[in-house]
Amino acid sequence: MSGKKNIYVNGINQVPVPKRQIEIVERKGIGHPDSVADGVAETVSESLCAMYIKEVGHVLHHNTDQTEVVAGISAPKFGGGEIVKPVYILMDGRATTYIEKDGKEVSLPVESTALKGVRKYLKKTYPYLDIDSDVILDTKLGMGSDDLTGVYKASNYLSNDTSFGVGFAPFSVTDELTFQTERYINGALKKKIPEAGQDVKVMCSRVGKDITMTIACAMVDRFIDDPTSYKSAVEDLTKSVQDFGAGIIDKYGDGENLVVDVNTGDDYERGVYYLTVTGLSQEMGDDGSVGRGNRCNGLITPFRPMSMEATSGKNPITHVGKIYNVLSTMIAKDVAKKVKADAEIHVRLLSQIGHTISDPLNANIDIINENAADSPKLNKWKDEAYEIAADWLDNIDKVSELIINGKIRTF
Amino acid sequence: MSGKKNIYVNGINQVPVPKRQIEIVERKGIGHPDSVADGVAETVSESLCAMYIKEVGHVLHHNTDQTEVVAGISAPKFGGGEIVKPVYILMDGRATTYIEKDGKEVSLPVESTALKGVRKYLKKTYPYLDIDSDVILDTKLGMGSDDLTGVYKASNYLSNDTSFGVGFAPFSVTDELTFQTERYINGALKKKIPEAGQDVKVMCSRVGKDITMTIACAMVDRFIDDPTSYKSAVEDLTKSVQDFGAGIIDKYGDGENLVVDVNTGDDYERGVYYLTVTGLSQEMGDDGSVGRGNRCNGLITPFRPMSMEATSGKNPITHVGKIYNVLSTMIAKDVAKKVKADAEIHVRLLSQIGHTISDPLNANIDIINENAADSPKLNKWKDEAYEIAADWLDNIDKVSELIINGKIRTF
Amino acid sequence: MSGKKNIYVNGINQVPVPKRQIEIVERKGIGHPDSVADGVAETVSESLCAMYIKEVGHVLHHNTDQTEVVAGISAPKFGGGEIVKPVYILMDGRATTYIEKDGKEVSLPVESTALKGVRKYLKKTYPYLDIDSDVILDTKLGMGSDDLTGVYKASNYLSNDTSFGVGFAPFSVTDELTFQTERYINGALKKKIPEAGQDVKVMCSRVGKDITMTIACAMVDRFIDDPTSYKSAVEDLTKSVQDFGAGIIDKYGDGENLVVDVNTGDDYERGVYYLTVTGLSQEMGDDGSVGRGNRCNGLITPFRPMSMEATSGKNPITHVGKIYNVLSTMIAKDVAKKVKADAEIHVRLLSQIGHTISDPLNANIDIINENAADSPKLNKWKDEAYEIAADWLDNIDKVSELIINGKIRTF
Amino acid sequence: MSGKKNIYVNGINQVPVPKRQIEIVERKGIGHPDSVADGVAETVSESLCAMYIKEVGHVLHHNTDQTEVVAGISAPKFGGGEIVKPVYILMDGRATTYIEKDGKEVSLPVESTALKGVRKYLKKTYPYLDIDSDVILDTKLGMGSDDLTGVYKASNYLSNDTSFGVGFAPFSVTDELTFQTERYINGALKKKIPEAGQDVKVMCSRVGKDITMTIACAMVDRFIDDPTSYKSAVEDLTKSVQDFGAGIIDKYGDGENLVVDVNTGDDYERGVYYLTVTGLSQEMGDDGSVGRGNRCNGLITPFRPMSMEATSGKNPITHVGKIYNVLSTMIAKDVAKKVKADAEIHVRLLSQIGHTISDPLNANIDIINENAADSPKLNKWKDEAYEIAADWLDNIDKVSELIINGKIRTF
Repeated sequence: MSGKKNIYVNGINQVPVPKRQIEIVERKGIGHPDSVADGVAETVSESLCAMYIKEVGHVLHHNTDQTEVVAGISAPKFGGGEIVKPVYILMDGRATTYIEKDGKEVSLPVESTALKGVRKYLKKTYPYLDIDSDVILDTKLGMGSDDLTGVYKASNYLSNDTSFGVGFAPFSVTDELTFQTERYINGALKKKIPEAGQDVKVMCSRVGKDITMTIACAMVDRFIDDPTSYKSAVEDLTKSVQDFGAGIIDKYGDGENLVVDVNTGDDYERGVYYLTVTGLSQEMGDDGSVGRGNRCNGLITPFRPMSMEATSGKNPITHVGKIYNVLSTMIAKDVAKKVKADAEIHVRLLSQIGHTISDPLNANIDIINENAADSPKLNKWKDEAYEIAADWLDNIDKVSELIINGKIRTF
Repeated sequence: MSGKKNIYVNGINQVPVPKRQIEIVERKGIGHPDSVADGVAETVSESLCAMYIKEVGHVLHHNTDQTEVVAGISAPKFGGGEIVKPVYILMDGRATTYIEKDGKEVSLPVESTALKGVRKYLKKTYPYLDIDSDVILDTKLGMGSDDLTGVYKASNYLSNDTSFGVGFAPFSVTDELTFQTERYINGALKKKIPEAGQDVKVMCSRVGKDITMTIACAMVDRFIDDPTSYKSAVEDLTKSVQDFGAGIIDKYGDGENLVVDVNTGDDYERGVYYLTVTGLSQEMGDDGSVGRGNRCNGLITPFRPMSMEATSGKNPITHVGKIYNVLSTMIAKDVAKKVKADAEIHVRLLSQIGHTISDPLNANIDIINENAADSPKLNKWKDEAYEIAADWLDNIDKVSELIINGKIRTF
Repeated sequence: MSGKKNIYVNGINQVPVPKRQIEIVERKGIGHPDSVADGVAETVSESLCAMYIKEVGHVLHHNTDQTEVVAGISAPKFGGGEIVKPVYILMDGRATTYIEKDGKEVSLPVESTALKGVRKYLKKTYPYLDIDSDVILDTKLGMGSDDLTGVYKASNYLSNDTSFGVGFAPFSVTDELTFQTERYINGALKKKIPEAGQDVKVMCSRVGKDITMTIACAMVDRFIDDPTSYKSAVEDLTKSVQDFGAGIIDKYGDGENLVVDVNTGDDYERGVYYLTVTGLSQEMGDDGSVGRGNRCNGLITPFRPMSMEATSGKNPITHVGKIYNVLSTMIAKDVAKKVKADAEIHVRLLSQIGHTISDPLNANIDIINENAADSPKLNKWKDEAYEIAADWLDNIDKVSELIINGKIRTF
Repeated sequence: MSGKKNIYVNGINQVPVPKRQIEIVERKGIGHPDSVADGVAETVSESLCAMYIKEVGHVLHHNTDQTEVVAGISAPKFGGGEIVKPVYILMDGRATTYIEKDGKEVSLPVESTALKGVRKYLKKTYPYLDIDSDVILDTKLGMGSDDLTGVYKASNYLSNDTSFGVGFAPFSVTDELTFQTERYINGALKKKIPEAGQDVKVMCSRVGKDITMTIACAMVDRFIDDPTSYKSAVEDLTKSVQDFGAGIIDKYGDGENLVVDVNTGDDYERGVYYLTVTGLSQEMGDDGSVGRGNRCNGLITPFRPMSMEATSGKNPITHVGKIYNVLSTMIAKDVAKKVKADAEIHVRLLSQIGHTISDPLNANIDIINENAADSPKLNKWKDEAYEIAADWLDNIDKVSELIINGKIRTF
């Protein structure tokens, strides 16, 4: 056991969320405007990391967790409409734009690198978006030299911010349903139902054993000839998700009843359909920002603790707001696996100036079930949780590496 | 008692947060870049509400919960430095830009109204910011006519979104300390210590009875002649906050110990000071966005339930993401006052398409203390909580009015 | 006589323009979008000159002859309408943003200085424009250090560009009518006819002795209650200009007939009026750019030689495109005064790399009348013209000073 | 002979420019920032024409003669450098964004069409520019419906502007040298000397029979390994142009002496080279605008009459500023061919409100040589010139068609 201080593990007597009467879980799909913003910001950071490593040998300071997606105007119609006014995407944030080398100032291609990376990301991720005409990419990535000389590893870094990360585990069946359904619609189901666009929002509300899953899915007009085809595509989608959800409940649940509602805002009588040209609601109606959608575990969970910190776009070396969010979730998962107690695990990591990132001001792990505080196993659990947290903190550079190598989802 | 369905009140056996070992609470002051963004977005909505009422007689649809603050560049120095590159603020979002009137299209002055309102707001709120040279205000407020004919009251409005609001009450002593300290520094203390700028971030971490309050406060260079004055101003600030905090603890607390750390990132040896020209860190280093800072109760509380919805900038008539957040907090406060049980109250309101806003899909009120579920008073509490929630929902238009009249803080 | 080489004076046998059958002259008023752009760009340069002198002691390199005025949307109406979408003005161009001082980089407040100067200019120049709501000012003024070390006077500067300036004198009666009428409408006449806005375009076409003056003048809606008042204001304007023009013809002309047409695009039957909220057509219909309107003598003269170089916004120390245009006009005027021969004087100055600005590659002065080449006075004229040109070139720093001190009109 | 009025043909006794002592002619190559702006604006108009024809059947109103090119930052180096900050290109101007069709508003894809067309144009025209990372394309193309109902042909159109076009012919040997040399460097020579980028500026100054051609050519770093290769490429370029120029003089001239200076701003001693990454100076130093470079005959000619109207980007149906410039040049060429008299032909066309475009307020044709006014052939020339002008005006729709079909160079 490492000599870490400031790791506080508690048993909390509390009914875990999955056992309560009410639970709400949401996931914004990869095409939701907030997720587009998250994806762009994270891609900017990834592209900059790669560029800095190529040009300088290691990642330099940047904090590009800012992107604003401003909606365009479209004219969708059955059989295929058109984009009238492109979406405008502003990539902002701060990044190191030059370094001193042998007494000379050397410029680094920050904005052109970001631009190139993001164009590639959008092209790959949103196949129905014509990157040449449907989107304007603008940059306001800030100027500055790197004042963090010598800090190329998270473990060396003395935090200069006071910030925290939050995570929980394990997922409930409602969590699993919410998360996996969006991945399914934007994954395996795409070939079967290409009409379903990338902007999929899944909201699950559980009351007792009844789960209502409300899905808003932007349908792609070029694949849909008329109202009949639209209706049929929505029915196919509903049926497929119903079947898929049944499998999730079999695996993670306990016989919950699932009702799936897709695009209930439609009104066929009045000719109202959720029809889009690109499968993305940003084309017409909705603006988006970084850090307002999914937490780094992929969900929005108002019954669980959450951090307000945007994970996407922050640099993975010095930014506690990113590393601690990712790490909290990892620690929670590992503790949940170890402490097989049907318990809910909450992890919160708080930095403070003067402490290295590997040594938080406090690391709080709560082990939650109806009688956790009174369990005879509590001390064992505490030791196990402590060990897991201490070990991860000792190896915090691994978290950076995983992020740099694109192994971590941030939204 | 009204016949509201879907209001679920539960007693939950759980140690309330104030009684746990660890608690973290944060407040971003009104000058933090995220708060600047929130304030701008909310001002856009307020200005549009007033304009719509003047031009049309009632509030029209808009959703302007989007503002991006892109940092500038400054050159602060003791005695007074200067802004080198202005901050860039993009106001985006969707708003009704024309209506049909007697068969003719009538344009509405959306962008000019927003611009005028925001300039006035910035001038009033940030006295050290020279609005003529230190900031660029840009707008991309979207085009569209109002498709919500006849919906001029929240109570009439059939939700077309699936969204939730979250609130809790009462504040713990840590909450009070965090919230009130920022209000104090940016309020009563300003005359005494004008050196303290508007960008004040307060982070309180409680471990048992020991509260560490970390304050980052942008100091205003024109009032500070040299390092000695700077040091002295920081000491004055620390002392004043220490005294003020003692009063808060006297009133709300239970003998907690308070340690106040101000600008601990400074390094006097190396000449590092948190010195600014305008009292705002946006002038140099930090970008900001709407909805990433304080929740509508003024705090960020990772130990309490939170919504990810941005409250600032959304319209107060149809947008559940705004009204339900504000309302949840109001209901929680009223319930907490009524249920005098040292309990923590959590409220979550979830809308669904087809339900009017005054009739949520489900309204969940949790009454939390160590033995709430087993309390003999539970049924009484349930009735009281039900009554309060039902009453507020029946009078949901009052929430809109309070917001329109500027009586509600959103960040 | 100084030993200048490369000054070529010629007598040209040619009928001067005023004596030909046809002549066309145009002036875009100070409120025309192209003139707004010119005024903004010139103000940026003036503001930067003042800032550089204050911060460094002398003018640093800049080339800010770029401004784009993007039209807004307005809803004018009798009695007073409103701006719906603000005009967007982008100030771009290159300017020195930092210098090295004692081995340290010192930033210079380029964009904030430009912003402040331009706001002040717009407020002063366009009284009907509400600077707080009717216009968005954006900047993209480039980054760079000054690589022109030691060049603080035009006379020292080795041209690094190949560029020319062009001027002519004297003005014909058609020139005088065109120029002075706009100055009159935007000057002395304003008190009497406030209905006439700043966007006044004057086009004079002379065929023999008949001059048709076509004026397009944006009328200001707040001063005009109804169609009758509009008609009356246009009639007043026409009458006043007719009288004013008669005076000009008395002074400079030879009994020309003048017909004045104001706002002939109006169609009272169909309710078409040239009505504006701000007196500026940029509010609704027309974009503007630097260097596309008046030459630095205040006119557009397709029967006279012109340079395509934008004079407004260029720096007055090193930019031949500015200094040579201003200087050509000055030399032409002085030569015309000296050579009292009813002659038309054309001056063209061409720089080349390696030559100092005070020593052009060639300076060409043409003395033009029906028999100039054969005149017995030609040699005397040549000597006089040579002397004048050589003297101005020897004192080229005076031109810079006059520009820096705001004594020179550039559009 | 058609019954056109207002065509004034004059013989002017005047030494034609080619026979005078001094002549200056300039051409900005297709890669000069002002030409980039012209090309973008013209492409916007071309793309919109094609889109309008596809969507509505004929060209709708637009006036998109506005584009601002804001310089980026680059770090060129021998062997291949990189773009650090992309160039920013703002396409603005007014265009019809919707029409009424069967009582319904139909949106037209103005901005997406412009964006797609311009991306394609840039890719094709500037092969060394990486369109995915080196340039930001933004649009502010205005909103409005078409108020020019029924005007789908220029010949029908009642001018609502007072504006003129100017042209001359024939080209002198100096004109030919200037024009053709740029076309040669950016054409046939490219395969042989790929090191020469698209930003080529050619300035010819003739004094008597001595022509100095100053060429500034942005060299492309990826093809140049070191200073020696650079020097060698510049020498090759100089030699090739010298040979090419000799051919032009043989064909059009009269034994003029040609001196070619390439990149004389270089200073090999001090390591100063005109080296670029993309062959375009916009990457680093120079902003550009529409209408400030070449006139529609491809040249800037301070010794000849010029119009200040930007030809590029204006619509080819109703905009006199475009049609009259193109047409003046065509008429001048045809007259010059017919009137074989070694004469210089100047054409100026002036519109006025109320006249159709095919019927200008006045059309002025000057036939210029030493004794044109006294020539016995003058009356014959006048008839021929009148006939040519009248015929073109009767067939003015052909000019529109030629422009729409991309047969006309505008810069």
